[in-house]
Amino acid sequence: MDYEPAPDTGGGLVRLRVALAYDGAPFHGWAAQPGLPTVQGHVEAAFERVLRMGHTRTTVAGRTDAGVHARGQVIHVDLPAGMVADIVLATVSRRVNSVLPASIRITGMNVAPPGFDARFSALSRRYAYRVRDDPATADPLTRGFVLAVRTPLDVDAMNAACGALVGEHDFLAFCKPREGASTVRELVNCTWSRDASGLVVLTIEADAFCHSLVRSVVGASLVVGRGARNQPWMGEVLAARRRDSAVPVAPAHGLTLEEVRYPAAPELATRAAQARHLRGPAHHKI
Amino acid sequence: MDYEPAPDTGGGLVRLRVALAYDGAPFHGWAAQPGLPTVQGHVEAAFERVLRMGHTRTTVAGRTDAGVHARGQVIHVDLPAGMVADIVLATVSRRVNSVLPASIRITGMNVAPPGFDARFSALSRRYAYRVRDDPATADPLTRGFVLAVRTPLDVDAMNAACGALVGEHDFLAFCKPREGASTVRELVNCTWSRDASGLVVLTIEADAFCHSLVRSVVGASLVVGRGARNQPWMGEVLAARRRDSAVPVAPAHGLTLEEVRYPAAPELATRAAQARHLRGPAHHKI
Repeated sequence: MDYEPAPDTGGGLVRLRVALAYDGAPFHGWAAQPGLPTVQGHVEAAFERVLRMGHTRTTVAGRTDAGVHARGQVIHVDLPAGMVADIVLATVSRRVNSVLPASIRITGMNVAPPGFDARFSALSRRYAYRVRDDPATADPLTRGFVLAVRTPLDVDAMNAACGALVGEHDFLAFCKPREGASTVRELVNCTWSRDASGLVVLTIEADAFCHSLVRSVVGASLVVGRGARNQPWMGEVLAARRRDSAVPVAPAHGLTLEEVRYPAAPELATRAAQARHLRGPAHHKI
Repeated sequence: MDYEPAPDTGGGLVRLRVALAYDGAPFHGWAAQPGLPTVQGHVEAAFERVLRMGHTRTTVAGRTDAGVHARGQVIHVDLPAGMVADIVLATVSRRVNSVLPASIRITGMNVAPPGFDARFSALSRRYAYRVRDDPATADPLTRGFVLAVRTPLDVDAMNAACGALVGEHDFLAFCKPREGASTVRELVNCTWSRDASGLVVLTIEADAFCHSLVRSVVGASLVVGRGARNQPWMGEVLAARRRDSAVPVAPAHGLTLEEVRYPAAPELATRAAQARHLRGPAHHKI
């Protein structure tokens, strides 16, 4: 399971950093589950087949939930040093892609710098949630990753409401809590804007996310955006620190993990030690 | 069939102009075929169901082939004047959309100006063909409308090669000819460029296209782009005026009808009369 500390990469192991993009629609999320199609299951099976290895264990930066997409996912995988010396990474990348379904693509693969841990070294995860609120710009080609709503949205009101969430807060009101896991997170960005093509896009970035946080923030934002609640309501929900039935969880298919940020190489190990201490065994499933 | 002249819209008929977007993947093209899923079949059935009419005949601006997409498709449909007086077009549009599969959306509907014919009044059709040539930017979310190739493309060479095609020419070398139909067309634009996200995009616009023209131009461009043929080759193929087995037909899924242009209202009828005379019963299937 990826929430245990990563193994010591001494003892003849070399760690690879792998960048991934996927269409989450066909999968029951990132995390491997017996008998169900998952991104992790496909990726590990593809590595095992191409490298002719036994079980290949991957560690992921953002444990995306069922139906959530990724353009900038990062994982690491540890291989025997002797094996890595013999392979050309570009060839492995191409061969793994040829085994993976077209809905999952490896976009980069390199030997990780010392101290790198895909999960614990990460400084932040950035997600985007995309909404279309104008039937005159309906686009079936993007319907798999854009939520369509019928009511025109007041993007300024949504953006102002989300201002109350930026900073360090207990996000219990927006999370499905897990036993023993903190719901305190630090949002460094939570901004709604309308792009040139008319799409309404949330950019949200935090050190880590508790389960359903982004989709609950989107659900609450849409309530404000169509005028059913006023702007200060979002801050009131946050301050109440309890699940509020008036906050819907938005559908998964509008959500995409866009980027995982890491510190410069010298800080990777320090950051990983801090994050392990801070998060312990908690999930940060989206 | 939509290549017969449109009916006289006197006699109590009101013509609607309808804008459409669709994901072509699930369909055997625009044109209705018995027993096969087609865009026309779905659209006509949806109108019939919502308006409780018998057979509803649509006329289309661009007869897209199997697997080709559209963002800016235009059709017209003639309804009894009495019926149009009783309906609110925004409501009809919403109800037709609720009956259509999510892969087809009506994006606009209004009473057409006098003389308007979706097919024959059109001045030009503009298509885009999208290619990704860099595995490092692979994006499974857009794989349904972007062709992925493995070789980096020389976009400048592709663009220079296509310059020879602009203007009025006999495009027999790039067309699947049909009996009695001219293969002379006027390309007003045929430009390759790399967009901000790294996609390689062909913008191609003409008064009308003969069958397979765009996908053959793309196929030939890709041959030049990967360096297998030099730049002047495209012009030589054109001048030879015969099908060349070295010109592959690119896959349908990278192609999207982006826009149909019409003249200002006073010129609609004149343009339609000219185009009827010029094109006769020819298809302009893409």
